[in-house]
Amino acid sequence: MKRTAFFISDGTGLTAEALGNSLLAQFEKIQFERVTVPYIDDTTKAAELVIRINKAAELDGGKPLIFDTIVNNDIRAVISEANGFMVDIFGTFLQPLESELSSSSSYSVGKSHAISNESNYERRIHAVNFALDNDDGARTRQYDEADLILVGASRSGKTPTCLYLALQYGVKAANYPITEEDLLDEKLPEALRPHKGKIFGLTIEPERLAVIRNERRPNSRYSSLKQCMHEIEEIELLYRRERIPFMNTTAYSVEEIATRIMVTTGLQRNR
Amino acid sequence: MKRTAFFISDGTGLTAEALGNSLLAQFEKIQFERVTVPYIDDTTKAAELVIRINKAAELDGGKPLIFDTIVNNDIRAVISEANGFMVDIFGTFLQPLESELSSSSSYSVGKSHAISNESNYERRIHAVNFALDNDDGARTRQYDEADLILVGASRSGKTPTCLYLALQYGVKAANYPITEEDLLDEKLPEALRPHKGKIFGLTIEPERLAVIRNERRPNSRYSSLKQCMHEIEEIELLYRRERIPFMNTTAYSVEEIATRIMVTTGLQRNR
Repeated sequence: MKRTAFFISDGTGLTAEALGNSLLAQFEKIQFERVTVPYIDDTTKAAELVIRINKAAELDGGKPLIFDTIVNNDIRAVISEANGFMVDIFGTFLQPLESELSSSSSYSVGKSHAISNESNYERRIHAVNFALDNDDGARTRQYDEADLILVGASRSGKTPTCLYLALQYGVKAANYPITEEDLLDEKLPEALRPHKGKIFGLTIEPERLAVIRNERRPNSRYSSLKQCMHEIEEIELLYRRERIPFMNTTAYSVEEIATRIMVTTGLQRNR
Repeated sequence: MKRTAFFISDGTGLTAEALGNSLLAQFEKIQFERVTVPYIDDTTKAAELVIRINKAAELDGGKPLIFDTIVNNDIRAVISEANGFMVDIFGTFLQPLESELSSSSSYSVGKSHAISNESNYERRIHAVNFALDNDDGARTRQYDEADLILVGASRSGKTPTCLYLALQYGVKAANYPITEEDLLDEKLPEALRPHKGKIFGLTIEPERLAVIRNERRPNSRYSSLKQCMHEIEEIELLYRRERIPFMNTTAYSVEEIATRIMVTTGLQRNR
């Protein structure tokens, strides 16, 4: 049996989506059709959505699940008339929170998703620009300014992780690819030595690395399993010798890699 | 009065953070100290955390708020012994969902935050690489392959938006900066013409643009208010003349810009 799940918000819908997906992940046997509906910020839009939810109920032969993070009571009241099963975050928790805090909620639409203040926003954009400027050790190497320097073999996941750290946490992360040439030295690359305390290493299963590299440069020495095995072995040796904290990224998403780096290094979330 | 808010998770903590912040945003008068605690995946870690929560309660002279997305009942039971006010998502909603779905939850730790399947993950990484390769119209212009081409003045927010669209939604977004030279033509730049259906424009208040540009190249013609006003005026004219959908990014976060583009263009979320 199929069920439709609606993630509904007066803002971007990201919170409703994250929350809904975390609950749905617990029901593996059921096939969910996921629909995100952002910017439901007046009762007219809500009423149109009710029609859509009721249609899904008919088609599925079961109530759609509704995960909403709408703050306004009037809009939520309209949604609650739909033929659905409502997981109503604000309706459930706002009133108890008001009691606990002896303070009334502002019930302001969109506010729930208000992204930080201006300075946080700018910090994140700066961090993105920093990550781009300091990508692959190529253009600039503003390592004095960096919060973190990610190192690892080419294609081990450094760039997406740096960008995620910047966008999500406002962390300035540079990255430096450890090349074969660097490994000949059997020492930490010179550019990195003054910044040892900021370095975090990534490693990856050689088999996986070979697959990833093959997409970029098929059938090359660079993407051969033999070459990948050699580089990874040497890089892990380097990490151990220099006591650089590192993690294997093979089984993890970008979100998880970034969060584990934050935890391991004790970096603060700049949001 | 200060209150501490704990965002606790057996995974990355991103969902607990998003949810907690959306609720806290409703209480403007209270100053919250926010603490994210990811990877609480056994009862020992939970017991240690209880001590930390109780300390915060003493220091603040008020119960800390606890926003948790821990799936395991035993771990949650330990946390619930803390001297805090628990906003217990899974405790509140899992059981009613089980009834509605006539299916039992797998109650599996970390699962709640399991990021998509492998192919989704790869799609997002591919999209990030695509965004980087097709940034600023510079290196490559694989516009045939693009889901979207963002255009706009230099520093109007194209790059962070493309990266966010890639990381969050797996959307392949290229970006093309509209230069003064392009504007002389009074036509859509030639590289864009065959792809008109994929183009989305960004604009921004000239005053804001001048501030941003001044950080990169202080006191230059490029960052002068006069120049910014001229470019923005011409670019908005171009959008109107060519009937390119566009939005003003001045008051919006990257998340909001990205979401509004998804809604306006009807692009599918590839997660």
